[in-house]
Amino acid sequence: MRSYRTVLTMNVEGRMAFVNITPQVEAAVVASGVRDGLCLVNAMHITASVFINDDEPGLHEDYARWLEWLAPYDPSPQRYHHNRTGEDNGDAHHKRQIMGREVVVAVTDGRLDFGPWEQIFYGEFDGNRPKRVLVKIIGE
Amino acid sequence: MRSYRTVLTMNVEGRMAFVNITPQVEAAVVASGVRDGLCLVNAMHITASVFINDDEPGLHEDYARWLEWLAPYDPSPQRYHHNRTGEDNGDAHHKRQIMGREVVVAVTDGRLDFGPWEQIFYGEFDGNRPKRVLVKIIGE
Amino acid sequence: MRSYRTVLTMNVEGRMAFVNITPQVEAAVVASGVRDGLCLVNAMHITASVFINDDEPGLHEDYARWLEWLAPYDPSPQRYHHNRTGEDNGDAHHKRQIMGREVVVAVTDGRLDFGPWEQIFYGEFDGNRPKRVLVKIIGE
Repeated sequence: MRSYRTVLTMNVEGRMAFVNITPQVEAAVVASGVRDGLCLVNAMHITASVFINDDEPGLHEDYARWLEWLAPYDPSPQRYHHNRTGEDNGDAHHKRQIMGREVVVAVTDGRLDFGPWEQIFYGEFDGNRPKRVLVKIIGE
Repeated sequence: MRSYRTVLTMNVEGRMAFVNITPQVEAAVVASGVRDGLCLVNAMHITASVFINDDEPGLHEDYARWLEWLAPYDPSPQRYHHNRTGEDNGDAHHKRQIMGREVVVAVTDGRLDFGPWEQIFYGEFDGNRPKRVLVKIIGE
Repeated sequence: MRSYRTVLTMNVEGRMAFVNITPQVEAAVVASGVRDGLCLVNAMHITASVFINDDEPGLHEDYARWLEWLAPYDPSPQRYHHNRTGEDNGDAHHKRQIMGREVVVAVTDGRLDFGPWEQIFYGEFDGNRPKRVLVKIIGE
């Protein structure tokens, strides 16, 4: 069995944004030498997501608006008890649960085994600081 | 290490429906010859889900109603900027995020290692067209 | 390839609660002897979740309140058709979809390959009965 590990560092301006990281994950698959296996991609921070969807700017606007409805930014400790800790990112911990922590993608013939529109995104919900994404590939 | 890959083609009538695909995934596990490992099952399309829950028709009615509350179908580009592209499926991209893209199931003794009520479902949110589900199994 | 399987039994008082199971999963990784691989942790029951987030009591209060807004407890079969079966846990099947069934964590150098704040939680949404969590580790 082969295994390969790499870490991407994300540095997103603004509180919320979606960044296509498919090229970096594809490069990791090539570097791994794995032809057949599984590729895990996960946010290493708990106010960020990794998910698969469409690379379409209108959709990303929709996601941002929808997540703000589901879990509005509000630094007060009344809405989010988490903010009693002195943090202001209670909302971000909720947004991340909707969008998910990780994806697992099949690797087949040395490539990400994707449908026609699948792209991997990093979702940032508490930006303006460096954060990391783990890519771990196992297989043969 | 063994690996096995197969693709299921789903052809669901209507916009939204849930289809139990456990028998097809179990058949893939048998065909793989894997006794111990992991089985990834994912939608290859970004307006569909794969998830694990109960095979109970009342619950599926509840999910459909709930998802329609969370992200109503609306072809207008006002509610969903994604629909500016000419698509009418902005809602489906949101429903899929709630229900998830994929499941990873343990394979033990050549079977899906499930609790008593776990069943694997394909969730369609923009139907009336053929779509694919990937099953990838690795192990020994 | 090595593989290792163990089951945790959870016995949570009250309908909803979050329990940090990171120590038990770390112990499983050590017991597995796997240095490099993947660790799947999933609820074996469909009214419970496994997820990764912060071990902060205020955040858990926020999650409980938020999930109650998204899918209120209501034993009546009017709100949840699932409750026509005689169950009263329709809400729990919805809460579980928000928080997720499973996590997949990389194993590197014989440890869970985690960011600084990542902790694994069992989320119970229909407690007062024993339930199980599966830990399956594969690698070398």
